[in-house]
Amino acid sequence: MANVNIFKFGVSSPADTSPMQRLKTVGYESKDILAVIGKSEGNGCVNDFSRTLSTHVWEPQIPESAVTIFSGGTEGVLSPHVTFIVHDPKPTGLVAAVGRTRLLAPHEIGTSEHALQVASSVRGLMDQSGIRKEHVHLVLIKCPLLTSSKVEAIKAAFKTPVTTDTYESMAKSRYASAVGIAVALQEIEEGQLEAAMRNEDRWSSKASCSSGAELEDCHILIIASDPSFGSLRAASAFMKDAIDARTIIKILDQIKNEGGHVVQVFAKAEADPTGKIRGTRHTMNTDSDLHSTRHARAAVGGLIAGLTGDTQIYVSGGAEGQGPPGGGSLCILYELGGLA
Amino acid sequence: MANVNIFKFGVSSPADTSPMQRLKTVGYESKDILAVIGKSEGNGCVNDFSRTLSTHVWEPQIPESAVTIFSGGTEGVLSPHVTFIVHDPKPTGLVAAVGRTRLLAPHEIGTSEHALQVASSVRGLMDQSGIRKEHVHLVLIKCPLLTSSKVEAIKAAFKTPVTTDTYESMAKSRYASAVGIAVALQEIEEGQLEAAMRNEDRWSSKASCSSGAELEDCHILIIASDPSFGSLRAASAFMKDAIDARTIIKILDQIKNEGGHVVQVFAKAEADPTGKIRGTRHTMNTDSDLHSTRHARAAVGGLIAGLTGDTQIYVSGGAEGQGPPGGGSLCILYELGGLA
Amino acid sequence: MANVNIFKFGVSSPADTSPMQRLKTVGYESKDILAVIGKSEGNGCVNDFSRTLSTHVWEPQIPESAVTIFSGGTEGVLSPHVTFIVHDPKPTGLVAAVGRTRLLAPHEIGTSEHALQVASSVRGLMDQSGIRKEHVHLVLIKCPLLTSSKVEAIKAAFKTPVTTDTYESMAKSRYASAVGIAVALQEIEEGQLEAAMRNEDRWSSKASCSSGAELEDCHILIIASDPSFGSLRAASAFMKDAIDARTIIKILDQIKNEGGHVVQVFAKAEADPTGKIRGTRHTMNTDSDLHSTRHARAAVGGLIAGLTGDTQIYVSGGAEGQGPPGGGSLCILYELGGLA
Amino acid sequence: MANVNIFKFGVSSPADTSPMQRLKTVGYESKDILAVIGKSEGNGCVNDFSRTLSTHVWEPQIPESAVTIFSGGTEGVLSPHVTFIVHDPKPTGLVAAVGRTRLLAPHEIGTSEHALQVASSVRGLMDQSGIRKEHVHLVLIKCPLLTSSKVEAIKAAFKTPVTTDTYESMAKSRYASAVGIAVALQEIEEGQLEAAMRNEDRWSSKASCSSGAELEDCHILIIASDPSFGSLRAASAFMKDAIDARTIIKILDQIKNEGGHVVQVFAKAEADPTGKIRGTRHTMNTDSDLHSTRHARAAVGGLIAGLTGDTQIYVSGGAEGQGPPGGGSLCILYELGGLA
Repeated sequence: MANVNIFKFGVSSPADTSPMQRLKTVGYESKDILAVIGKSEGNGCVNDFSRTLSTHVWEPQIPESAVTIFSGGTEGVLSPHVTFIVHDPKPTGLVAAVGRTRLLAPHEIGTSEHALQVASSVRGLMDQSGIRKEHVHLVLIKCPLLTSSKVEAIKAAFKTPVTTDTYESMAKSRYASAVGIAVALQEIEEGQLEAAMRNEDRWSSKASCSSGAELEDCHILIIASDPSFGSLRAASAFMKDAIDARTIIKILDQIKNEGGHVVQVFAKAEADPTGKIRGTRHTMNTDSDLHSTRHARAAVGGLIAGLTGDTQIYVSGGAEGQGPPGGGSLCILYELGGLA
Repeated sequence: MANVNIFKFGVSSPADTSPMQRLKTVGYESKDILAVIGKSEGNGCVNDFSRTLSTHVWEPQIPESAVTIFSGGTEGVLSPHVTFIVHDPKPTGLVAAVGRTRLLAPHEIGTSEHALQVASSVRGLMDQSGIRKEHVHLVLIKCPLLTSSKVEAIKAAFKTPVTTDTYESMAKSRYASAVGIAVALQEIEEGQLEAAMRNEDRWSSKASCSSGAELEDCHILIIASDPSFGSLRAASAFMKDAIDARTIIKILDQIKNEGGHVVQVFAKAEADPTGKIRGTRHTMNTDSDLHSTRHARAAVGGLIAGLTGDTQIYVSGGAEGQGPPGGGSLCILYELGGLA
Repeated sequence: MANVNIFKFGVSSPADTSPMQRLKTVGYESKDILAVIGKSEGNGCVNDFSRTLSTHVWEPQIPESAVTIFSGGTEGVLSPHVTFIVHDPKPTGLVAAVGRTRLLAPHEIGTSEHALQVASSVRGLMDQSGIRKEHVHLVLIKCPLLTSSKVEAIKAAFKTPVTTDTYESMAKSRYASAVGIAVALQEIEEGQLEAAMRNEDRWSSKASCSSGAELEDCHILIIASDPSFGSLRAASAFMKDAIDARTIIKILDQIKNEGGHVVQVFAKAEADPTGKIRGTRHTMNTDSDLHSTRHARAAVGGLIAGLTGDTQIYVSGGAEGQGPPGGGSLCILYELGGLA
Repeated sequence: MANVNIFKFGVSSPADTSPMQRLKTVGYESKDILAVIGKSEGNGCVNDFSRTLSTHVWEPQIPESAVTIFSGGTEGVLSPHVTFIVHDPKPTGLVAAVGRTRLLAPHEIGTSEHALQVASSVRGLMDQSGIRKEHVHLVLIKCPLLTSSKVEAIKAAFKTPVTTDTYESMAKSRYASAVGIAVALQEIEEGQLEAAMRNEDRWSSKASCSSGAELEDCHILIIASDPSFGSLRAASAFMKDAIDARTIIKILDQIKNEGGHVVQVFAKAEADPTGKIRGTRHTMNTDSDLHSTRHARAAVGGLIAGLTGDTQIYVSGGAEGQGPPGGGSLCILYELGGLA
């Protein structure tokens, strides 16, 4: 169980690693890094090479045991940045664990096997680090997707891909990761995993999963609270729909009442699959120029940035299994006491 | 000076005129309509044929003196709908006037002559209807843009288009309209019109302008308050930037304190031209897949929909001269007393 | 069996019906029109309102028995235009028949029932008009798609949509139409229809199908040759892949040898589903900014326009069941003798 | 004057450097590389990080004196690949020279100073390597563009950017590079450079320029013929418009007649700025969902791939000053004798 601190810095492009220097100025070294989480400025979809570029430039900068999680898409007011999760010698109030699943074969992506691997890895990380499920506020995962080449490789091996639509494979991969998280956190019983995969109707409010072509395993970050110490805290909840300002405001008010200030927000967003929000039609699922995940990030990003006054937030699109349909999981990290 | 009432209804497509029937059920006829204002579900840019389609189906349904103002783009959570401004026999608290400029020749679009025509028409409408500038809360304008054909026609006539970039012509047209409004409302002195056009640095917080290929004149709607009567009220302000939740919340709180409820919101949104919001980089101006007006509508739409709990709101992209750079004009119509 | 002539004219926008006047100048009346076929300038996908707009303005101009077939998407060099199929009192060398299926319920779109209805309607039209399958060169169909609202309506009725992805529903609808055509032309045995629908592996080189939100039945146009008379001729073939210039050049050479000139080209285009063309990777299926049908129209449109020197051609994207995978059906109408 | 050979290989992603191994199998080492030219699979516009990623992975693989030139955008049938220009100990029939301009300050991009620097560098390279202008077939340049940050930096220094529209800055940069090439090749007199920059009406049929955010100087590659030796040859011409198949076929026929086969094609493509091709309207300049350079690459790529049967070709969008308006420069490298 690693005590962790959290820092975020803007980047001038997906290739910008200057935050490494800024991290040093606040007293941490490369070796302290557990995870680099970023919002990069591509389309957040299949051919988002901003994520791949960021992964390329960051991986040589961090320990081999550390993970990168780059979520593409800074639509609307969202601002490209990286968030460091760093090991801290003293208790801070937050603890974390990071790891990876084994490599997933292309035909496993988005399947029960994918979910099982995630469940097993998350559970293993919790066991090793002594994190108890009641204290977990966020399980952040980066998981692979299917490209045309992978689809063909699967077919050539006489196996069946979970879908032949590369964009849809991102959703399938996110859902499998979310189910794996829910099983590890005992939100879904292990015996229900297959049914959850088949029915696509279960969700975890702690899960935040994002797909990418830049990796073939799943990168995992677990953040939990240890509130007897330090000044860092976490609050988690879920947005009921994409305009659920009430839930966000409630947490922000609570943070204010505790005399705290927000350090980082992790939110998932999606277009309501019914095509409606509170009974009124939206057009995110019929816009063939712009994928619904881009719409959702822009809208929910606009709302949270407005409420927090901060555009360097982690809003990720595609919330299958990560909060209720049309809504999304929400985790806010904050610090008690005045701004440093 | 026409006393007006306001109603809004969802549409199932840009061709849906069923709100006409719903208007009748609340007691108004086609002849009562002063304006049909809509958010239609196209890209809101040059080739947005959802606007043209809506205009085509609505114009035969309304009096010749009435105007249509369709703003394309329901990115994110925004919901396609139409808002009717209807004449009411009794005082309601709101008054309105509608009209048109003369047809603008292609080479006039976005120029000082365009601004002058708007100024003159807005002033004329105010004079005729006895609306005083102090009472104006919103001047909504739909104005033309340049297509490839129009650019060529201008060149063939040995004249110079304001720009040869069709998307940019939308911004030039909006700015000229906004300057015209500001002159009519005496926010800019008439003698300063040329300078305002040249420097592109002036703005009106009452102006809301939107460009389209579906018309060749400017359609104008002026909404003013007459608060000695009735239960309808207007509040106007401007967002300082695209995440200015504070200004919106302040008005919403005031409405709540008056015991009112929101009927409709008219907001302009834009990508901050400096590439930054509160000092932090955004990517709306470097995204070559998605025009900045689409980004801005999605983000500001997400914020206002979250704060009002309503997705059938009028959020329009491209706020040149309509509120401060990076921000936008804001007008909220509301009704005192409980919901009908 | 109607003898037909064919004319095409450019349009200045999807709302432009001025070709009606031009048709009159060449001696035909509205009552002579069997079909108006157009390329309109939208995205050719789910939310293409240019098609709906064109349908709206054209339907009042033509006989009730006539059909409209608007295919969206004039990517690259393609030029928006309409093609008239008009009844001619004297034999021309070409004959045609037009009709409609019954309305398809949303849950039927893209299913075997859809294919059966098309098969039955095409067969009925051939029987009534005495067109024999050996003479058919083209069966052009406009068929419906699923929107978010239709998907919800299906679910509310406890039925299952063929897909919940609105863009994918276009492909499913095209394929069902193509299978129906193939059955009617006895390219697929009737008993094989179900298997063809299940395996998605059959195709007709005479089929050209395009989906749209603007209709709920299928519009059908059959073009056949009657070469004992007149000077109009048809040639049909299929492109083996999206760069199959050889097949096109072969037909063009034959036309030249016969002393003819091209009147119109009808081609289907698609991204090879394997992600490769002649063994080399393409990126149309992994581009999340631009749907593969748009890519394919642009590329094949560029090739055919280059070879014919004409950009007012009918190139339609999404060739499921319409020519071999990655290729597409091809029909060229031409006239013997010098240019009129 | 370096004798050069040319090889091309497909890539599986913008991060794929496996062609390095393939180059070795044909007998060349990293130290032999003069230039790596690639088509990468981004949008080819301002935020194309596929180019940046390719540059990142390739630059450590090649000599410091070598240059990378990555052109984004493999729309339609185009296939991502890299082309190596390698030094050959013996005469091949082709010679080349590579170099760079000095870094351009942001305010210089797209200006006369930019053109002058290119002219001077191209001339210097020709002088040093003994290449005579009559033998030059292609000058390929990668040049910088303006981002939001660069625009702000320029304004902060009280200087004026050539444009504030980041996408338009790409065109301005390409044009300045093309004028520089034309001056160096004496297609434009040096005294006419300022006028050429002002009037934007001059062009070179040897210039092929592409802009990107991934560099701040201009990378230059000159290819010339030395036909007394070897079996490699070059042919250059220009396409008169985007459907000018005749010019391409003429060169391909000549190559066939000489018993040669095509090794690589370098073509520039653009949307005709008049909005018409051979008098007929196109929609590339009014499509706000898809920039005209993407349209043009897809269409011209489809044509050339069809005519050559090869999709691994270099077709680049935005031909300002590189061939006549609406057309583009064209250079085909070929080898005499049978395929190796």
